Amino acid sequence: MSTPMNNLGIVKRNIARADKAAVDKLSRFGVATIHEAMGRVGLMHPYMRPIYPDAQVCGTAVTVLLQPGDNWMLHVAAEQLQPGDVVVAACTVDNTDGFFGDLLATSFRARGALGLIIDGGVRDVKDLTEMKFPVFSRAISARGTVKATLGSVNIPVVVANAVVNPGDVVVADVDGVVVVPRELVGAVADASQKREDNEEAKRQKFREGVLGLDIYGMREPLAAAGLEYVED
Amino acid sequence: MSTPMNNLGIVKRNIARADKAAVDKLSRFGVATIHEAMGRVGLMHPYMRPIYPDAQVCGTAVTVLLQPGDNWMLHVAAEQLQPGDVVVAACTVDNTDGFFGDLLATSFRARGALGLIIDGGVRDVKDLTEMKFPVFSRAISARGTVKATLGSVNIPVVVANAVVNPGDVVVADVDGVVVVPRELVGAVADASQKREDNEEAKRQKFREGVLGLDIYGMREPLAAAGLEYVED
Amino acid sequence: MSTPMNNLGIVKRNIARADKAAVDKLSRFGVATIHEAMGRVGLMHPYMRPIYPDAQVCGTAVTVLLQPGDNWMLHVAAEQLQPGDVVVAACTVDNTDGFFGDLLATSFRARGALGLIIDGGVRDVKDLTEMKFPVFSRAISARGTVKATLGSVNIPVVVANAVVNPGDVVVADVDGVVVVPRELVGAVADASQKREDNEEAKRQKFREGVLGLDIYGMREPLAAAGLEYVED
Amino acid sequence: MSTPMNNLGIVKRNIARADKAAVDKLSRFGVATIHEAMGRVGLMHPYMRPIYPDAQVCGTAVTVLLQPGDNWMLHVAAEQLQPGDVVVAACTVDNTDGFFGDLLATSFRARGALGLIIDGGVRDVKDLTEMKFPVFSRAISARGTVKATLGSVNIPVVVANAVVNPGDVVVADVDGVVVVPRELVGAVADASQKREDNEEAKRQKFREGVLGLDIYGMREPLAAAGLEYVED
Amino acid sequence: MSTPMNNLGIVKRNIARADKAAVDKLSRFGVATIHEAMGRVGLMHPYMRPIYPDAQVCGTAVTVLLQPGDNWMLHVAAEQLQPGDVVVAACTVDNTDGFFGDLLATSFRARGALGLIIDGGVRDVKDLTEMKFPVFSRAISARGTVKATLGSVNIPVVVANAVVNPGDVVVADVDGVVVVPRELVGAVADASQKREDNEEAKRQKFREGVLGLDIYGMREPLAAAGLEYVED
Amino acid sequence: MSTPMNNLGIVKRNIARADKAAVDKLSRFGVATIHEAMGRVGLMHPYMRPIYPDAQVCGTAVTVLLQPGDNWMLHVAAEQLQPGDVVVAACTVDNTDGFFGDLLATSFRARGALGLIIDGGVRDVKDLTEMKFPVFSRAISARGTVKATLGSVNIPVVVANAVVNPGDVVVADVDGVVVVPRELVGAVADASQKREDNEEAKRQKFREGVLGLDIYGMREPLAAAGLEYVED
Repeated sequence: MSTPMNNLGIVKRNIARADKAAVDKLSRFGVATIHEAMGRVGLMHPYMRPIYPDAQVCGTAVTVLLQPGDNWMLHVAAEQLQPGDVVVAACTVDNTDGFFGDLLATSFRARGALGLIIDGGVRDVKDLTEMKFPVFSRAISARGTVKATLGSVNIPVVVANAVVNPGDVVVADVDGVVVVPRELVGAVADASQKREDNEEAKRQKFREGVLGLDIYGMREPLAAAGLEYVED
Repeated sequence: MSTPMNNLGIVKRNIARADKAAVDKLSRFGVATIHEAMGRVGLMHPYMRPIYPDAQVCGTAVTVLLQPGDNWMLHVAAEQLQPGDVVVAACTVDNTDGFFGDLLATSFRARGALGLIIDGGVRDVKDLTEMKFPVFSRAISARGTVKATLGSVNIPVVVANAVVNPGDVVVADVDGVVVVPRELVGAVADASQKREDNEEAKRQKFREGVLGLDIYGMREPLAAAGLEYVED
Repeated sequence: MSTPMNNLGIVKRNIARADKAAVDKLSRFGVATIHEAMGRVGLMHPYMRPIYPDAQVCGTAVTVLLQPGDNWMLHVAAEQLQPGDVVVAACTVDNTDGFFGDLLATSFRARGALGLIIDGGVRDVKDLTEMKFPVFSRAISARGTVKATLGSVNIPVVVANAVVNPGDVVVADVDGVVVVPRELVGAVADASQKREDNEEAKRQKFREGVLGLDIYGMREPLAAAGLEYVED
Repeated sequence: MSTPMNNLGIVKRNIARADKAAVDKLSRFGVATIHEAMGRVGLMHPYMRPIYPDAQVCGTAVTVLLQPGDNWMLHVAAEQLQPGDVVVAACTVDNTDGFFGDLLATSFRARGALGLIIDGGVRDVKDLTEMKFPVFSRAISARGTVKATLGSVNIPVVVANAVVNPGDVVVADVDGVVVVPRELVGAVADASQKREDNEEAKRQKFREGVLGLDIYGMREPLAAAGLEYVED
Repeated sequence: MSTPMNNLGIVKRNIARADKAAVDKLSRFGVATIHEAMGRVGLMHPYMRPIYPDAQVCGTAVTVLLQPGDNWMLHVAAEQLQPGDVVVAACTVDNTDGFFGDLLATSFRARGALGLIIDGGVRDVKDLTEMKFPVFSRAISARGTVKATLGSVNIPVVVANAVVNPGDVVVADVDGVVVVPRELVGAVADASQKREDNEEAKRQKFREGVLGLDIYGMREPLAAAGLEYVED
Repeated sequence: MSTPMNNLGIVKRNIARADKAAVDKLSRFGVATIHEAMGRVGLMHPYMRPIYPDAQVCGTAVTVLLQPGDNWMLHVAAEQLQPGDVVVAACTVDNTDGFFGDLLATSFRARGALGLIIDGGVRDVKDLTEMKFPVFSRAISARGTVKATLGSVNIPVVVANAVVNPGDVVVADVDGVVVVPRELVGAVADASQKREDNEEAKRQKFREGVLGLDIYGMREPLAAAGLEYVED
């Protein structure tokens, strides 16, 4: 099905991954912090949810494009995995089938992968939870898949409305999933640290009862925008 | 943007809150009981879910009308909070952005607020869970918001299809969120108590194997409605 | 409302239930395994979710057809329950009302029922969780229901897109809900056992780092389908 | 089911309707214009759609609260209709049943009603279209309803997230449905006229190729907000 | 994939179709009338919509079970078609791909088929509209499908929550889609006629301004249910 | 808000547009044909619908990233338009507000733009239909927007799950919206022509009653896949 006109039926073997040290540094921060540090970009749609409440993961993306009801390319992707990778799987259409279960998780983990982000369904959730294998998905579904139609591995994909390039870093926790472009990981980690330092000071003020109105100097712009206080 | 024709850009400072003792009494009952005691009214849409399973809250509403992607008015609302209040936030359109996180929760708690009901998204869910700050929301999302457009505080709002007036009581638990009009709180608490007393007797009968058909005298009306028992 | 042209207003008293020993055997397997063992059929839509994470149930179906906002027929169904049954409730239209709570759960349990599968809402989730009464539903909602319009008991129903006949076996866990036709339960249990035996061997190989590409002999069909490996 | 604690089971006979002349004046404007003239409030959720493309209506609201799958109160409402009224029907829960068809339309029209706004389903759409009876609804569905449970007529209702009081004016066209509070109708008509006069001048400028950037003086605030033009 | 445990990979050649004369008679009635005549059963979910406003069809069902993104079985079904048939296609999971376009429509029509009901997507809608080939579907989508995985033809299927057996009659118009079991077609046509005769008399009364309250004798049961009229 | 870490607050003035002659050639084909010619890629999600049934457009993309409830950047985009362009607007989150109406359409048309593809809402649909200004959107909504927060113009965007780069060609009709990368337009037009030529021959065969089973040689692969014909 691959033609010069599309990226279907292709596996890219050699991808540039984000710098290991930078990824480690980034892994200390939550998704909300990283998203803000980047200037409020990079988030997937909030329908992506963890399969267990405290799932979290940070790693370099090996991307997969799946066809609906077909998990062939997840097996192809397994061979391309390196320690520290996270599999990031798109599907050509909305599909909630159970593309992934405990066998593939065992395989991915044996290759050093840290988790899965999938715009589709997963199953064997009890086993995955016991394995502490973090998965963020659009659905949980027992429905099995076939192995009949080609997709691709390590091409740019759109997952839950976010573009992911192979080698980018994905970070996921209970607040959602954020994508950090490969070449920005170090800078985003620094900006995240700065933001967190800054937040701690504010948190202390809030704890003492100081209002955001005063901490952020909002009273004047609110008045300028026309906010009126009425007594009754 | 406020005109004589709408309630936008307004903060009402003085609101009549439901009677403290009545709120305390009401707080002993679950949402399902209160909803039934009122005659089956007052519930928000079931898309409102707790951010952690055992979240629950009962308090007097400080209402907020938000614009999409803009949490300015939550900071304005913070100043209006009194101990025992619950912030109840509507949005002018469907929006799942993360309007609220651990900093605002710290601020709200410092002002004595007990929780948040929001027809939008929240983030920092891990921190909020550790703080045991109960939030009921339409979504969880890391996406940040701006502070650019006015809404209002303490005007009547529609939250998840329910009308909430400032000073009303909102009660929320795993079954959903119910609104009790300010002047009815005492009566509803009494009716809830009566209902609960009544249920305990029934529960005992059900435990012994007596059927609802007999407890509620349903056999005759079922037959009158034409129910037929067929043997094979 | 019942006419010779439909099944409304009917209760079938005598239904053939799946063989007890076969049900016991089947109960050892998860939903994903059973669904695969049957050749990938029989699943309900993934919007059916457990009300607490580790809920699971396996039993013979007593089916119910409900009208929206009306739980009359659940009381009628209670009388038809035998030990080992699971109540499987459809609704004539999409409806999320709280048809079921702790009183009915107490009644069903007193009759020997093991759980509930309902294409609607439930409430008293805190109590149901404490009782460890497994429920799989489309929604959680405190909204109460009336007892005014007839449905039926023990007719074939469509629940979340799956056909359930009275006496069939339903199995539910965190991965979803599957229906096994009454006369196939033994064969499906055998096929499930075979599948599970087979999986254990594969799991060991995956753990050792062998790829699915090799375990399943996929390299040749992938090449035949045109998969290309590109170096950069 | 009516208790002092709710508004169920009530029909208010005498309601104050918006001033006829003001309604006539308002009827010349579209929904988008009116919504803007009010300061961007009063709209129903966009899931409310006309059953035929050029449906439009403007009239005084007779409000109805329906129970799911039950159209009893529409018959009760018919008796309260006066020429120039529009029936505005809420439902206690999400429900798409066909509450309304050509017979009720014939009845409503005979009473002088101009149309229907319903947060539910309708049927007989071919006949309604031929009758040119404008209906705005959440769904089209052939499913019939019963007459078994009380709602109310002429109480305040929430329809598609908007509050409607009896006697308010509702205006609906292909862009949506807007609610104008009874006492504001004249002022809103005036503001709508002003807005429309103002728009015509702008339309002419746009036609000539003048940019909104210049018509609205946006270049400076955009620069102040930090907008950067980059050449490649 | 077919096993003794499921119906996948099967084509039933000989099916009993509903009686031609009865189908003809039934074809005179609309979906709402037929649904009511059957006692309010048999409707598909209202997400099934015509691809052009005045599409309508009535014929005997040749059923198809599709796999997501795969239209192989529609070609298999074409061979089983006889004049007067309507293809009724289910899919194993939610899928909106464009399974069907103008080529298949040309094929189906050449075989005598009258239309298509599909719980999936269709494309070439402009051509289908020009051909006046009626299609009722869950979506319109240009997305193409593969021919790789078996489903079945002429087994019982669940389409948009309704069970359809091969040979049953499906009737579709702007109000929705209804399924009439094969052996009931004559009786349902008679009941539909009776209902329509009855409606005409009522329509006349409604036209004259008589209220449903009086036509249906509702005043007494409303009072018995507790309806209160209040003056202000 | 723009930082080196994101593309917010940026307008790219000079973009390379697809070759005019190639765009003209491509404009002769429908969306389904183009999507197939590319090897089944490039489609937007089917929730994108035309605001009137026969809307269609083919042109070079000027891309816009909008903030929810804010149409500022559409005015900024107007200045960048050249004859033959189509505005393609993404939003940072799901939002159905009415970002666009007849004034902006007048402005866009005055600049030579051919239409709008927007992952948001539009209004003034009656006027837009009379103007024959083709718009494909996720929603119709009268709700107005503010001009307060920066997005960007002519950066790569994700619209309804498809990536669009400035200068790419978008083609839209009743079947959906497809994106053709700038450098592939000529090749895709050629492939589309080939496909259409090929289809005409098949259409003739289908008309004569030849089956797809025979035209495409499916009988053997179906048998190989295990398809069984059963007689009753």
